[in-house]
Amino acid sequence: MNPGELVPAMSGRAWRVPPRSLVEVIDVEGSQTGDVFAVPTDDLEDGLSNGRTFDYGESIRLTTGSVLYSRRSRPLLTIVEDEVGTHDFLWAPCSQEMYEIGYGVTEPHPNCLDNLTASLGGFGVPAATVTIAFNVFMNVAVGQDGGLAILPPATAAGQSVTFRTERELLVAVTACAATTANGGAAKPLRVRITEGAGSPTQGRA
Amino acid sequence: MNPGELVPAMSGRAWRVPPRSLVEVIDVEGSQTGDVFAVPTDDLEDGLSNGRTFDYGESIRLTTGSVLYSRRSRPLLTIVEDEVGTHDFLWAPCSQEMYEIGYGVTEPHPNCLDNLTASLGGFGVPAATVTIAFNVFMNVAVGQDGGLAILPPATAAGQSVTFRTERELLVAVTACAATTANGGAAKPLRVRITEGAGSPTQGRA
Repeated sequence: MNPGELVPAMSGRAWRVPPRSLVEVIDVEGSQTGDVFAVPTDDLEDGLSNGRTFDYGESIRLTTGSVLYSRRSRPLLTIVEDEVGTHDFLWAPCSQEMYEIGYGVTEPHPNCLDNLTASLGGFGVPAATVTIAFNVFMNVAVGQDGGLAILPPATAAGQSVTFRTERELLVAVTACAATTANGGAAKPLRVRITEGAGSPTQGRA
Repeated sequence: MNPGELVPAMSGRAWRVPPRSLVEVIDVEGSQTGDVFAVPTDDLEDGLSNGRTFDYGESIRLTTGSVLYSRRSRPLLTIVEDEVGTHDFLWAPCSQEMYEIGYGVTEPHPNCLDNLTASLGGFGVPAATVTIAFNVFMNVAVGQDGGLAILPPATAAGQSVTFRTERELLVAVTACAATTANGGAAKPLRVRITEGAGSPTQGRA
C-alpha cells in the first residue's frame, strides 16, 4: 500500500494532484490538526473559500458528502470519507501575527499561513490567494451566542479524512504549528494521494 | 446634517476614507441587507477576512465593539454603534454563479460580488482581493448542528450600523441584489461618511 508522505510537525507540503484523485490526511499520533488549502491549476487566484462552501452547503459543519468550493464557486474538493467528523472552516490559518497578537510571542514562530504560502509559492500561487484554510481535525465549539471555543482534537492515532479532487489542483497540507489546538504538542500528519482513484459518485450525500 | 449618499437597489459604491472616520450604513426602507468590504490603501491585497475576525474576536456574532480584521491581521473597521445587532460574516457575497447554482438563473443577474469588485476596481483593487464581505443586517440563524438558515432582516426603516475606520481604507458598500435575504424585494441603502469624527476610544468593548 502507498505509505504516503510525512508532513513533519510545524511544516507544510504541497502537491499537484490530478482530477478524481483521493487525498487522505492521516493523524499519525492523534489529537493533531492540519490546514488544507487547494487552488485549481487553471486559475491560481481561485482559492478555497469558506463563504462559498457555506453558501452552497448551508452548514458550517462539514463531513462526508460536503463539497469545498472556490472563491469563484467551483467545486474543488469533496469529503468522501471521514473517520473523525470534527473539522473547522471558521478560523484562519495560524500566522506570525496571530502568535504575536493572541499569545504575546515576540520571536519568529513556525505557522500554517507561511507554511501554506511557501509550499504553494513553489508552484507559483500568489500569497494573497491564501485567505483561509480548511482545518482538519480542529475541534471548535460554537455557542448559542456565536462564541467560539477551541477544544482538543477528537482524533485517535491513525484516523483520517479523505478528499476527492474535483479538478486538477494544487493541494497544500500543514501539520499545525500551534500547541493549543493540538492537545498540547505539535505533531506530524501523513498525506496519502492516490491518483485517479476517486469515483465521481463517491461522497455524494 | 450630512445626508450621506444613496446606494441604489442592486448596486454598489466605494469611497476612499481617512483613518478615524465614521461610516454609517442606513437601511432606508427597512429589511434590506448590504455587503461591506474594506481594504487598506497601503496594500490592496490585504482585504477584509472573516477568519481573522473570528480568530481575534472568538465569535461569529459581531456587533458594537467588534473589530473587523484584514487577511494580514490588521484592524480595518470597528463597529462603534449598532441599532440592529444582526449581521453575518459567514456567507460570501451573492454572485452570478450563486444565482445560477442556487436559484437556476440563466440570464445575467446584478450581484454583490460584481458590484464590489467593479466599485473597488476603480481604485485599483484586484478582483481576487474580494473573497468575502461583512453582510450588514443579514439575519442568519445557526442551528446546533451547524445548519444555516437565512431569515428576513430585522431592521426597521432608518436603522443603521456605524463603523470607525482604523486606517486609511477603500470601503465598498452594496445594496444586496438578492430578494430572498431582503424580505422579498431589493431596496437601496444610504451611506453617511463623517471624516475624522471617530474617537479612538469609541466602541471598545
